Amino acid sequence: MTRPFNFSPGPAVLPEPVLRQAAAEMLDWHGTGMSVTEMSHRGKEFMSIYHAAQASLRELLAIPDDYKLLFLQGGAIGQNAIVPMNLLRGKDRADYVNTGDWSKRSIAEAEHFCKVNVAASAEGSGFTAIPPQSEWRLDPGAAYVHICSNETIIGLEYHWTPDTGAVPLVADMSSDILSRPIDVSRYGLIYAGAQKNIGPAGLTLVIVRDDLLGGALPTTPSAFNYQVQAANDSMINTPPTFAIYLAGLVFDWIREQGGLAAMAERNRAKAALLYGCLDRSAFYRKRVVAADRSLMNVCFHLPDPALDAAFLEGARAAGLLNLKGHRIVGGFRASIYNAMPIDGVRALVRYMQAFEKRCG
Amino acid sequence: MTRPFNFSPGPAVLPEPVLRQAAAEMLDWHGTGMSVTEMSHRGKEFMSIYHAAQASLRELLAIPDDYKLLFLQGGAIGQNAIVPMNLLRGKDRADYVNTGDWSKRSIAEAEHFCKVNVAASAEGSGFTAIPPQSEWRLDPGAAYVHICSNETIIGLEYHWTPDTGAVPLVADMSSDILSRPIDVSRYGLIYAGAQKNIGPAGLTLVIVRDDLLGGALPTTPSAFNYQVQAANDSMINTPPTFAIYLAGLVFDWIREQGGLAAMAERNRAKAALLYGCLDRSAFYRKRVVAADRSLMNVCFHLPDPALDAAFLEGARAAGLLNLKGHRIVGGFRASIYNAMPIDGVRALVRYMQAFEKRCG
Repeated sequence: MTRPFNFSPGPAVLPEPVLRQAAAEMLDWHGTGMSVTEMSHRGKEFMSIYHAAQASLRELLAIPDDYKLLFLQGGAIGQNAIVPMNLLRGKDRADYVNTGDWSKRSIAEAEHFCKVNVAASAEGSGFTAIPPQSEWRLDPGAAYVHICSNETIIGLEYHWTPDTGAVPLVADMSSDILSRPIDVSRYGLIYAGAQKNIGPAGLTLVIVRDDLLGGALPTTPSAFNYQVQAANDSMINTPPTFAIYLAGLVFDWIREQGGLAAMAERNRAKAALLYGCLDRSAFYRKRVVAADRSLMNVCFHLPDPALDAAFLEGARAAGLLNLKGHRIVGGFRASIYNAMPIDGVRALVRYMQAFEKRCG
Repeated sequence: MTRPFNFSPGPAVLPEPVLRQAAAEMLDWHGTGMSVTEMSHRGKEFMSIYHAAQASLRELLAIPDDYKLLFLQGGAIGQNAIVPMNLLRGKDRADYVNTGDWSKRSIAEAEHFCKVNVAASAEGSGFTAIPPQSEWRLDPGAAYVHICSNETIIGLEYHWTPDTGAVPLVADMSSDILSRPIDVSRYGLIYAGAQKNIGPAGLTLVIVRDDLLGGALPTTPSAFNYQVQAANDSMINTPPTFAIYLAGLVFDWIREQGGLAAMAERNRAKAALLYGCLDRSAFYRKRVVAADRSLMNVCFHLPDPALDAAFLEGARAAGLLNLKGHRIVGGFRASIYNAMPIDGVRALVRYMQAFEKRCG
């Protein structure tokens, strides 16, 4: 079977070997006669899956010992409220950097809990460039500084780590976690919905430094209280067991590929192919400044929106799926997460060049 | 392949045809070349799965038009806090009926938000009988009355629907939803974690009457605000797409079996076999009064706990898995949800009779 290339922004393509293994084990995991979906979350079978996934992720990201790794639910949108619930720790304000739509949603949720200082905003540039840190107006009294490391809608990504001094840096890494090595120790908290580089939707990762635990608002639900979940190995409620199993298979696949350094190299090569095609073209339009381009979500426009439908239709016929841009910005978006093979990007570039020749 | 019989209390056994279909479609759903895990939640492929699952469940439960059906995350433990966040609507107190450990956890979370009146408690009976409604001390000023329709740990289930007059009845039905027909119109809100009769862990159903929407606390996260989610077809965040797909397959399976009336008949027959075995035995001990016995979780003890290990080991050898009782009460628990075939119960009864003959 030839699979089409799926450029969906998330939920997104998963590695084919992961799906093959999940299919093969669906009725009988390792001779137990049970599907992973049917296992008690506290039974020895699932616990072995769970602890292996945790260990695998800790190794991949080199998570220091003084950080807890939590497997929660509710996605990044849930975390937008859960972060201030847990991290204000008696303070009344937090810093947020606004680099696009996901940042704005984080800000809107946080405003129900505290005074939000927008320390910097990309709005002036039409969200085409990340404000350099020299322009950030950070508040030393802030409970934390919040960034979104990759804005999927316009394709804007940090390729550097802000320095927030003694104030903990919090990052929504939903769309670029595991795409490259990071220094976890530079962050107070990292969170990520699973549905880009981790696994299926419905699992949310939180990596949090120990000293930030313990100050949650009393009304924080136990299921979303980092300290309660950390003390219970993320099992104060039943965790999303099958999603964790698939995520574990993805972690193993990344390790087999050579880990995050190898992923970063592949992702750079894929993005270079696609941005190279855009840069050499006088036909395709792009917005984001070169230094802040996302390696995960490559956005572009046609010179005439009247051509959009034909571009999409031709792409679909060529086995290139889900290239439509987000409704807020229109145009096109190729999401090229870890599991998108370089052959998919090559096929897209060939299609784009042929389309340009025909319509340019 | 012969599958063992899995009596896990949840996550629990799923219908084998559902797992077979999921395995067959894991790499290619309906010729799309995509796994359901890889589909954009807003794409037409997943939307067709989503709307079919919603329609199927609405039909199964005969959900009236003035009720919203939400597909959320965080489990029933999450809902324990999310219910008061959404349903207090300016009131300062709520009624709770305490029938066991799950009720107690609901009460503990609610106490962060309001004054909890324990309108009735089974504690006096050692949680072996549900207090009759004539003994409930309901508060007409309560925002709602909360019950847990089935307590899995001791095996205590309501076989009647409380009448709470003008005060909305809220039920945690995590462990017996879809096991029998219910009259949804008798409830203001029903919630359920998926991992017993619905599908895999990580999906939470909420069925809520329209007039109860709109009064959430301002600090309710959008992902858990019923009105916000209702207005966005439960897509204010990315829903747990694969779990919804599996749940939809389970809903279809239930309809093929004849719907909830047929499920109820099967469940009554299974429970009758097992309780019949217990009732005829002077060896096995049981606690719950006959009228309030759970049809989902059948709990029993051996006369001498020194025999427990041998009972479990023999059961495992006979292909009867996960019969150990909850650590709070010890002994044994056979969870016989919808997907447990009657052959599994027959095999368990045969094993129990043989064990009694040998050790009794």
